[in-house]
Amino acid sequence: MTSERKRILTGVRPTGALHLGHYVGALENWIRLQEEYECYFLIADYQVSDHADQIRDLHRQVHEVALDWLAVGLDPERSHYVIESMVPEHAELTTWLSWFVGLGRLQRNPTLKSEMADLEAAGSDAIPVAFFTYPIMQVANILLPKAHLVPTGEDQAPHIEMTREVARRFNRLFEREVFPIPDGLVGRVPRLVGLDGNAKMSKSIGNTIDLKDDAETVTQKVRGMFTDPTRLRATDPGHVEGNPVFMYHDAFNPNVDEVNDLKERYLVGKVGDVEVKTKLAAALNAFLDPIRERRAHFESHPALVREALAAGTDQARAVGRETMAEVRSAMQVDYL
Amino acid sequence: MTSERKRILTGVRPTGALHLGHYVGALENWIRLQEEYECYFLIADYQVSDHADQIRDLHRQVHEVALDWLAVGLDPERSHYVIESMVPEHAELTTWLSWFVGLGRLQRNPTLKSEMADLEAAGSDAIPVAFFTYPIMQVANILLPKAHLVPTGEDQAPHIEMTREVARRFNRLFEREVFPIPDGLVGRVPRLVGLDGNAKMSKSIGNTIDLKDDAETVTQKVRGMFTDPTRLRATDPGHVEGNPVFMYHDAFNPNVDEVNDLKERYLVGKVGDVEVKTKLAAALNAFLDPIRERRAHFESHPALVREALAAGTDQARAVGRETMAEVRSAMQVDYL
Repeated sequence: MTSERKRILTGVRPTGALHLGHYVGALENWIRLQEEYECYFLIADYQVSDHADQIRDLHRQVHEVALDWLAVGLDPERSHYVIESMVPEHAELTTWLSWFVGLGRLQRNPTLKSEMADLEAAGSDAIPVAFFTYPIMQVANILLPKAHLVPTGEDQAPHIEMTREVARRFNRLFEREVFPIPDGLVGRVPRLVGLDGNAKMSKSIGNTIDLKDDAETVTQKVRGMFTDPTRLRATDPGHVEGNPVFMYHDAFNPNVDEVNDLKERYLVGKVGDVEVKTKLAAALNAFLDPIRERRAHFESHPALVREALAAGTDQARAVGRETMAEVRSAMQVDYL
Repeated sequence: MTSERKRILTGVRPTGALHLGHYVGALENWIRLQEEYECYFLIADYQVSDHADQIRDLHRQVHEVALDWLAVGLDPERSHYVIESMVPEHAELTTWLSWFVGLGRLQRNPTLKSEMADLEAAGSDAIPVAFFTYPIMQVANILLPKAHLVPTGEDQAPHIEMTREVARRFNRLFEREVFPIPDGLVGRVPRLVGLDGNAKMSKSIGNTIDLKDDAETVTQKVRGMFTDPTRLRATDPGHVEGNPVFMYHDAFNPNVDEVNDLKERYLVGKVGDVEVKTKLAAALNAFLDPIRERRAHFESHPALVREALAAGTDQARAVGRETMAEVRSAMQVDYL
């Protein structure tokens, strides 16, 4: 059942709970775009680790991602939840495409460069070959369902650029328009600041508010947030710009009058951090409440989660087989 | 239909006609071992090139390999003819295993090192990522049918060593004996000298006698063979050792008395090159005649070739799916 709508492919690696940064950086777009596009939401489980423990933990992590997605309202009736490694065509297309990307091209990709530096800093003297395969698999993931649009975080821009290059190269080499040239789309808040004021909310730093955090956890995390370090007393004039608490208000508090009032009073030293944070925690909890409710529903109905994953993965295989048949035909490797 | 016999996996890249070097280096073993082992003969079509023209030529090349195999007597009723790229589980297992091999490990592999040097000498400044994927795919090719034995050319020894390492590592990491540790087996004449005296018969050098060469071509090629450069006249004493004409007599002429007689006379200058070569051409043609006949039969029955490829590839997929189910279970990534 191939729809006539244009397609989206996007996804995440199943490496931990989704958080507010994911929401405003990407998920929010995904939810909205489901109306217009046929969406393939991919759980990229190949791209995790060479540690047996982390691989064995994938089962749990994959289901956690699905729960987070169901919780925010990615609708498995309309969109497809796909487990990467259960669609062998991902690996198949990756293998063919790996002829069309040079190792040097990968090593110049800034995102990969920084990940490689992280690996080396962590004392790994042996970079696994998977590290060079997975960027090509990201290309294959996008091209397999012939996606037109890839709404994702801004750090993925180099991968989308590479996908465009590979698609153009393949189409030109084999003289057929097999692959559309996909566009990227970055969310409303491309990089949400962390609780600690760090430029990025990130699980590895531990400065996140997770979509599944309960109300009390959120309130406590907000209470401990970094604000304006130059302001010592509630009566000191404060800075609003670059202040994480106000950045979160802007991103998540729909009551614009309240936010403006808090900002005005903050600038002149007429409001304490406690009030600003209490109102932020209330806004965040109001935002997260329906997400928590849906999550609780699906947590108590694990069969629904499995069904979403199974149906979406089946659909991705069907589309993947169609694309691979075209790829093989273009390359004339349809032997039998 | 899984047999209880131990298994063999071996194969070739479909890059040209098979020749006498392939026969004594490997094929001869394969033919013999079919009695005892369940054999998977793989046509490794992923591992060819980034040139569109060469990829488009694969269709022809794959069928040529199958014809050569049918011609020498690899029996598709007992053994499985497998097209690598049509078994997606090859790519799937490759992707998982690529976590367990470091790039540095590949760069130390002597066979790869020399292939990489060839690529660079040919002016390629961009080594495709496929170049680092395909050694891991060779590992996956062997492990997917859980082969116990890999009868192949001596240049493949480093790949078999790597396969043993990866199999051991996987079994240890996931605490299950998923993969047997395979052994290599090199043929009777590990490296057949070329017509030109070059250490190796090789299509790229153009010093081969192909299994499909007709009688006249063989006679002409033998006539032009390199012999003993120190011998100017038929009455000069000659060298037998290191003399390609006698190396071929040893490898292919079953008439040992005739060969010994020629050698004795050659050493003392009592026989001309013409006689030695005429008898070699006769021996080679006698050896090749039944091969040519079988080839002609299958050439005029292309449906039989397709059937052999289709049936073997189906069988490899069935076995591949079984192995991948075990691999997934060991890694606990059987999600649904």
